Amino acid sequence: MRLFRFGPADNEQPGVELPSGKRISVAAFGHDYDEQFFASGGLDRLAQWLQTNADSCPEVDASARLASCIKRPSKIVCVGLNYAKHAAETNSPSPAEPILFFKSTSALCGPNDNVVIPKHSEKTDWEVELAIVIGKKATYVSTEDALDYVAGYALHNDYSERAFQLERGGQWVKGKSADTFAPIGPVLVTKDEIADPNNLHLWLDLNGERLQDSNTNDMIFNVPTLVSYISQFMSLLPGDVISTGTPAGVGMGLKPPRFLQPGDVVRLGIEGLGEQQQTGESYS
Amino acid sequence: MRLFRFGPADNEQPGVELPSGKRISVAAFGHDYDEQFFASGGLDRLAQWLQTNADSCPEVDASARLASCIKRPSKIVCVGLNYAKHAAETNSPSPAEPILFFKSTSALCGPNDNVVIPKHSEKTDWEVELAIVIGKKATYVSTEDALDYVAGYALHNDYSERAFQLERGGQWVKGKSADTFAPIGPVLVTKDEIADPNNLHLWLDLNGERLQDSNTNDMIFNVPTLVSYISQFMSLLPGDVISTGTPAGVGMGLKPPRFLQPGDVVRLGIEGLGEQQQTGESYS
Repeated sequence: MRLFRFGPADNEQPGVELPSGKRISVAAFGHDYDEQFFASGGLDRLAQWLQTNADSCPEVDASARLASCIKRPSKIVCVGLNYAKHAAETNSPSPAEPILFFKSTSALCGPNDNVVIPKHSEKTDWEVELAIVIGKKATYVSTEDALDYVAGYALHNDYSERAFQLERGGQWVKGKSADTFAPIGPVLVTKDEIADPNNLHLWLDLNGERLQDSNTNDMIFNVPTLVSYISQFMSLLPGDVISTGTPAGVGMGLKPPRFLQPGDVVRLGIEGLGEQQQTGESYS
Repeated sequence: MRLFRFGPADNEQPGVELPSGKRISVAAFGHDYDEQFFASGGLDRLAQWLQTNADSCPEVDASARLASCIKRPSKIVCVGLNYAKHAAETNSPSPAEPILFFKSTSALCGPNDNVVIPKHSEKTDWEVELAIVIGKKATYVSTEDALDYVAGYALHNDYSERAFQLERGGQWVKGKSADTFAPIGPVLVTKDEIADPNNLHLWLDLNGERLQDSNTNDMIFNVPTLVSYISQFMSLLPGDVISTGTPAGVGMGLKPPRFLQPGDVVRLGIEGLGEQQQTGESYS
């Protein structure tokens, strides 16, 4: 299945993109895509419900705002420096084990919402990433079993303010958590529809110029390794997001470095997971 | 008001400790202490409701398990090295601006629950801390206005696995987020009952031996400074927790270092905010 959410920020509703490409509202199903949905077998129940109800669901207007494809999760766990060339462009060694940090869930927004450049920001940067959405509670799971705990995958732009992240006294979370810094979507694609999450093309354009262009097969630590690894340090809850790191081509790695300006257009995509587009906007 | 929560982990209920010391269930009020409660003026509505309903509320049995005094918030923001002597004991310089990191909200537990020592942990450590609970959404608030955004205060033991935090490839979150690593409570005390949050005695005993003994007036960055500072980097949501850092006396600062063993008893308190007690337990 391909799940999306739509509507204004204060009234977001669940939807499903049918194999035909038609997008329908499943508000009548009665359950948004939150922790409880995934924990209670919501994916299976929704698939079942659609068999008898899809035809009577209203179509979603093409002009509707797209929201984050999942409702706010308990956490967004991010992986740092998980592509060797990206580690090199930031003058960092390739990590011996995954680097983890959190992003505030209040940063979550729709895939095509404007990205708000924070007050006093001079180094707002982009990061196209494959996001994993957890399907059931995962604590100390093995690499072999890890995919059993995955609901599906989505596209994420892990926006980062590099000065806040790296020049303001340690711990990256400070540069990762501003409002609108986590557009996730347009769709959550369930894992049965992705043949190999470790072999997906991903890319990002700034004002039409391709800056990131890679494949998840370049990740140092792959999807099952990350799920298993993180679950050794904390419980992953249903609906939680793991963002798996970004390939080379971020602004701070360019020579000279380039950062987001108001009016800039960022477009990004992952094979099978759709595309996003954000326009930079000053905080007002 | 003094708010607490009680009952088994899968069925926690809100309660109020009356000025007489009597503890009553306010389940009949119909709203647990979550983001929506704080966002919708829940504190005022509860105070009003109690005027006519407190007498008919059932008393909570003294044997009831205490839960975290707030329902799971969107985030727990922690402040690192915020007491000069603690910075010194960890061989770190005093920070020029607050160091921030996150703790997984899945670590939240009751104030007297056992602390589960994670698998492969050899360096589980304690940190008595003053926790601030946010009352309304805070984005770019000034130091002068910061206390308007605070609901109240609680006691927090910011458990930390030092090897996971410091020896496993950067970013402290890895050592801060295990299940049971965030006992918060026993009570959320609303700010009107705390004359000065920046002048509260706090202490921690391990097996009856006093190891931490300080006052929040030793914090490098005080309560309004922290609320304002953090709100420059992210939106703080109603119910969110800021844990303000720990004074000297943590296990890794002792000579020789000491860490938590199964059966160890940790007892801690803050003036006006009550006490907690955890017993160390091996993961099984």
